[in-house]
Amino acid sequence: TTQRYFLISAIGITQATVAYLTNLSSSYFIKSKYGQVYDLLEHGHVAHAFFRFLFIQTAFAAVASIFVWIEPVSAGSGIPEVKCYLNGVDLPRVVDPKTLICKVLGVICSVSAGLPVGKEGPMVHSGAVVATTVAAGRTRNDVQKRDLVACGAAAGVCTAFSAPIGGILFALEEGASYWAPSLTWRTFFCSMIAFTTLLVLNTIGTTFGKLGFNRLFSFGNFLYEGRESSFAVYELAIFVLIGVLGGLIGAIFNNTNEKITHWRIKNINHSKKRRFVEVLLVSMLVSTISFLLPLLWGQCKALPHDPNFSESEQELVESLVPFRCVAGKEYNEVASLMFTDPGDAIRLLFHMRKHAFSFGALLLFFLSYISLAVLVYGIAVPSGLFVPSLLSGAAFGRLFGNLALRLSPNLAFSNTYALIGAAAVLGGMARMTISLTVILLECTGNEQFVLPLMLTLMTARIVGGVFNEDLYHIHIHLKKGVNFLEAELRSITRHHNLIAGHVMSPKVIFVRPVEKVGVIYDILKSSQHTNFPVIDTEDNGVLFGTIGRNALCVLLKYRAFGFPKSESSETGKGMIQNYLKLECDDEKFLPLVQWEVLEKAYPKYPSISEIRVSREDRECLVDLRPYANVAAITVPETASISRTYQVFRSLGVRFLPVVNRHNQVVGTITRPDLTPDALAEKMIGKGKKLQ
Amino acid sequence: TTQRYFLISAIGITQATVAYLTNLSSSYFIKSKYGQVYDLLEHGHVAHAFFRFLFIQTAFAAVASIFVWIEPVSAGSGIPEVKCYLNGVDLPRVVDPKTLICKVLGVICSVSAGLPVGKEGPMVHSGAVVATTVAAGRTRNDVQKRDLVACGAAAGVCTAFSAPIGGILFALEEGASYWAPSLTWRTFFCSMIAFTTLLVLNTIGTTFGKLGFNRLFSFGNFLYEGRESSFAVYELAIFVLIGVLGGLIGAIFNNTNEKITHWRIKNINHSKKRRFVEVLLVSMLVSTISFLLPLLWGQCKALPHDPNFSESEQELVESLVPFRCVAGKEYNEVASLMFTDPGDAIRLLFHMRKHAFSFGALLLFFLSYISLAVLVYGIAVPSGLFVPSLLSGAAFGRLFGNLALRLSPNLAFSNTYALIGAAAVLGGMARMTISLTVILLECTGNEQFVLPLMLTLMTARIVGGVFNEDLYHIHIHLKKGVNFLEAELRSITRHHNLIAGHVMSPKVIFVRPVEKVGVIYDILKSSQHTNFPVIDTEDNGVLFGTIGRNALCVLLKYRAFGFPKSESSETGKGMIQNYLKLECDDEKFLPLVQWEVLEKAYPKYPSISEIRVSREDRECLVDLRPYANVAAITVPETASISRTYQVFRSLGVRFLPVVNRHNQVVGTITRPDLTPDALAEKMIGKGKKLQ
Repeated sequence: TTQRYFLISAIGITQATVAYLTNLSSSYFIKSKYGQVYDLLEHGHVAHAFFRFLFIQTAFAAVASIFVWIEPVSAGSGIPEVKCYLNGVDLPRVVDPKTLICKVLGVICSVSAGLPVGKEGPMVHSGAVVATTVAAGRTRNDVQKRDLVACGAAAGVCTAFSAPIGGILFALEEGASYWAPSLTWRTFFCSMIAFTTLLVLNTIGTTFGKLGFNRLFSFGNFLYEGRESSFAVYELAIFVLIGVLGGLIGAIFNNTNEKITHWRIKNINHSKKRRFVEVLLVSMLVSTISFLLPLLWGQCKALPHDPNFSESEQELVESLVPFRCVAGKEYNEVASLMFTDPGDAIRLLFHMRKHAFSFGALLLFFLSYISLAVLVYGIAVPSGLFVPSLLSGAAFGRLFGNLALRLSPNLAFSNTYALIGAAAVLGGMARMTISLTVILLECTGNEQFVLPLMLTLMTARIVGGVFNEDLYHIHIHLKKGVNFLEAELRSITRHHNLIAGHVMSPKVIFVRPVEKVGVIYDILKSSQHTNFPVIDTEDNGVLFGTIGRNALCVLLKYRAFGFPKSESSETGKGMIQNYLKLECDDEKFLPLVQWEVLEKAYPKYPSISEIRVSREDRECLVDLRPYANVAAITVPETASISRTYQVFRSLGVRFLPVVNRHNQVVGTITRPDLTPDALAEKMIGKGKKLQ
Repeated sequence: TTQRYFLISAIGITQATVAYLTNLSSSYFIKSKYGQVYDLLEHGHVAHAFFRFLFIQTAFAAVASIFVWIEPVSAGSGIPEVKCYLNGVDLPRVVDPKTLICKVLGVICSVSAGLPVGKEGPMVHSGAVVATTVAAGRTRNDVQKRDLVACGAAAGVCTAFSAPIGGILFALEEGASYWAPSLTWRTFFCSMIAFTTLLVLNTIGTTFGKLGFNRLFSFGNFLYEGRESSFAVYELAIFVLIGVLGGLIGAIFNNTNEKITHWRIKNINHSKKRRFVEVLLVSMLVSTISFLLPLLWGQCKALPHDPNFSESEQELVESLVPFRCVAGKEYNEVASLMFTDPGDAIRLLFHMRKHAFSFGALLLFFLSYISLAVLVYGIAVPSGLFVPSLLSGAAFGRLFGNLALRLSPNLAFSNTYALIGAAAVLGGMARMTISLTVILLECTGNEQFVLPLMLTLMTARIVGGVFNEDLYHIHIHLKKGVNFLEAELRSITRHHNLIAGHVMSPKVIFVRPVEKVGVIYDILKSSQHTNFPVIDTEDNGVLFGTIGRNALCVLLKYRAFGFPKSESSETGKGMIQNYLKLECDDEKFLPLVQWEVLEKAYPKYPSISEIRVSREDRECLVDLRPYANVAAITVPETASISRTYQVFRSLGVRFLPVVNRHNQVVGTITRPDLTPDALAEKMIGKGKKLQ
């Protein structure tokens, strides 16, 4: 276990370093990009500024897309892929080190390219890959590996948002199929180490190791005002209303993005070149709109001024963008939201007091930004969804804030509404509850918003859920051949009359306890199953146990077989008895292949295509009894489908033999048998027979 | 499901109301008690004050003890009992409405009695009982009932600490055996409703529905100071050190309390009178010490004065107790901690700046208060452990704070150290991590302490874990006949060679698919099992299914049996065929007892002692086949013990048939077979044979 703690610590420290460097470089690139463009604008060179801006942004987007060209799995947010992995679905290359490099370098570029994307989702993916990379060769067991990936995902969220508890809850709510106390403890430990590392890295160069609030909390600190709560109890009703609207916005977002993705799969995604060109075109569109909207808005507003402004408020005022207004005196509202670092824009929306942004500017920004975000998610760059949702949501929320301010000075400030709006839109899209509540609390540092956030997120989830699934699941279902098992199958739980016997495949591919090499070879060649039941045909076909494809391959490779004695090489009953008299070259004892040899093959088991079996070998016998798992998990054919489903989910198995009352195998169930479509088909088919 | 949401809402609203009334009445009693005593002291009547104080406190303690006399289960914190319930152990009367009344009224009195006890643990118990009371008769299923109790426990923590997320995590970390997403969602909903209700109740009479920080956060709000974190990165090392010491203190606390409880079980707990007298004596001791220590301390300290004090700091200063010093100018340090509302004392320790409390006063208070707390936990009053741990821990932490202040003005303030100390001592006693972190964050409202709290709580847990278990588990294990299944059995997981076949009881009490009434009656009379395997003796003894005691009782009560036809009443093979020709009074169809009749009996199933079976009846036959659960969960005899254990824990079953390769029942496993002691015994016994 000490070794495991080192492993987990290594995961946390590595991921924190990755996140730190990602933040550092992307904010450096963004700063220098806008630095050049602001400079040109200040000197009145509008056209020059535009082309410089367009060129820099498109170049970054192109580089980001090249990384995706190299490793296509690194596109998108990565959260759907991590969820699949934790669910027990093996997608190829998702947790390869190459993916890590392309994802991290790619997301730095796509964020620097000014696309409406965040780096938070990719950080979660990065955490997961860091976990498998660090643990490579140190764990064999599937369950252990999945637990480490959960730890990595927790560290990813933790370092992306500076939200250690949020990270733990994200891994548990979204990732893990079941909550073992030991897993909680490990994610806790990993998240803590990651956060400590990040804090230490962030304090480099600060006075006396103390961190400013802008780095301690990702979206700046919501200060406590006065001695009372920042919202009145009555306003909870308004927050619920915002949650309803957020749920609707999220549902529209998901629906639109699903349609665009469908179109993309048909027309673009089959060609790497088309994907690349799409990125260039979309990036140019985004750059043009980001530049044109502030230009068209044109109005200049005087910078707010108040001698009572605190230092942090003064900093906020300084981050307002003048665009073509008089620098130091005026600012362009739309440019301050659209033509700047999205992190700064979120902080402005969250923390500027009163009428800093007019109704028109907010609405214009909200509509255009969220439209771009819905278009961008799915192009061939690494791209997270949190920041675009939060940013557009914050603008949406401030619309209500402006209204509230006009109604009564006793109501909450606009910034409270910005937070609630951000939660509503993000919640309407992602449909998380407890983990998002905690992440947002940890991003803003103000615990009093716990109830408003809970109410808003819950409402957004319920309302959004009426129309469609969350965007991650939509994208999971758009992947081909992925048999993701949802936490709950609502359509199924009510059908108590649907039993395992109805959904199983009655065709059973099996081996016998002592089996011919030829039979094993043919089975491995002709099927893709990872597990096979071992059925004792001499004992009425009862289940002896199960054996994995990998073990069978190793046995064949090491030639753990012998010739049956010729005199009794009949068939059937004699086989096992004969085996004990197998002719061997030299004296070998059972088991012929030691357990360590089987284990050592991990993780590169021989593939059946590498194995050569001669015509003579085919007649030899392998004794599978020492290698079979004799305590195999099975389901009775009379078990309800919901229990069968639960076994699959909670144990993460991929294959279950279905047995009758005499423990004879009557069929097998694999993941594809349990997808909603397969089940629905079976229900209709069998339902008619049942009634 | 709509009905279920109403149910969960009702649980949340009721528990919030209970918590609100408890808080209101206990703080009223405490205030009026100290009001009288302070008055007398101010006028110099020391002896009079002492006797008045002694009398009031002892009277309250006596009343609290009378409630426990009426319902002994309402003593103590209730958290061990709730944990047992959620674990699947049925303790009698733990979730009865009578227990709720005694617990709530009792805890108001024991808190008003000035004993070093908190009302938080009892609130958790209260939430659990509220859940079963509200749901009475609406759920049949054990699993559903347990889920509702988890919701109630979440609402309990939520309302006790104003910590909605902490409540959810408490229910999940401490209570639930496994984390189903639907359970998360329900606890989330329940906690949210409870918190909303509490907030609405608390805003009665406030301006514009806004709540002051002292009511929004249980222990007052830790304000953000300046623009930087309140601690330096280097100080994390000191926090870890405090965690180590907290773990040691907690271990000593647990060990001492365990010994005292052992003594109590032997000498006191068997007699209600002795328990009552013990309460009186202990209460008088507590009152005497609470009065004497401030008196002996004697020193008066000038009230801190600063024109820059904020309103909340001014309030804190006003809550300092003068005792025999000049009111309004001076205060007695020890009295301000010991001779006041413990909530006020915690707030003073958490929020007073700088040298408000000297080293000597803190040490004196810490040692005496924690000693009293260790003595008190276990006497016959409702008593929680959170507040005493937090209060003594806060004093302990400030010792370090005073030191840090002397070392460097850049180090954290004493109040930060008070929070860390409180976490360390509480964590060392209760050994929770994620839920305590969140509860403490939600009690104080300052997110920046997330990492210090995580580090301290984790260290305290690891260090404490070296010496003993957490206090709740210690008290669970002190209960007789409770087979609590821990989340993990460390001693077992390594023993892969220990299999289900080793730990099972080979004696199987079973019924046949068609069984004689006499046999069923005798089995029910002679055994206490709640489930019986149904074994088909005519089919080589394979397992047909399982049937519950309750169903058998109902079948006997409704006389769902008939005479076998005389001509073929032989034995063996003929039995089932005969059954189809059962002679019935009037025409009845199978099943003789409808499913609804079986269900309607819930929750008051007939007991076997109420059922009369005549000599003639005994020869009749019951067909159990329509009622048996034919998809019973079983374990193969070759299954590893850790898998068997996991099935028990995660499915909450109390009985598992063990089957061999032919699905013949070879034994049964019940909870007592899986306790650490039973397993250790079997390991030693079988281990010798295996090697």
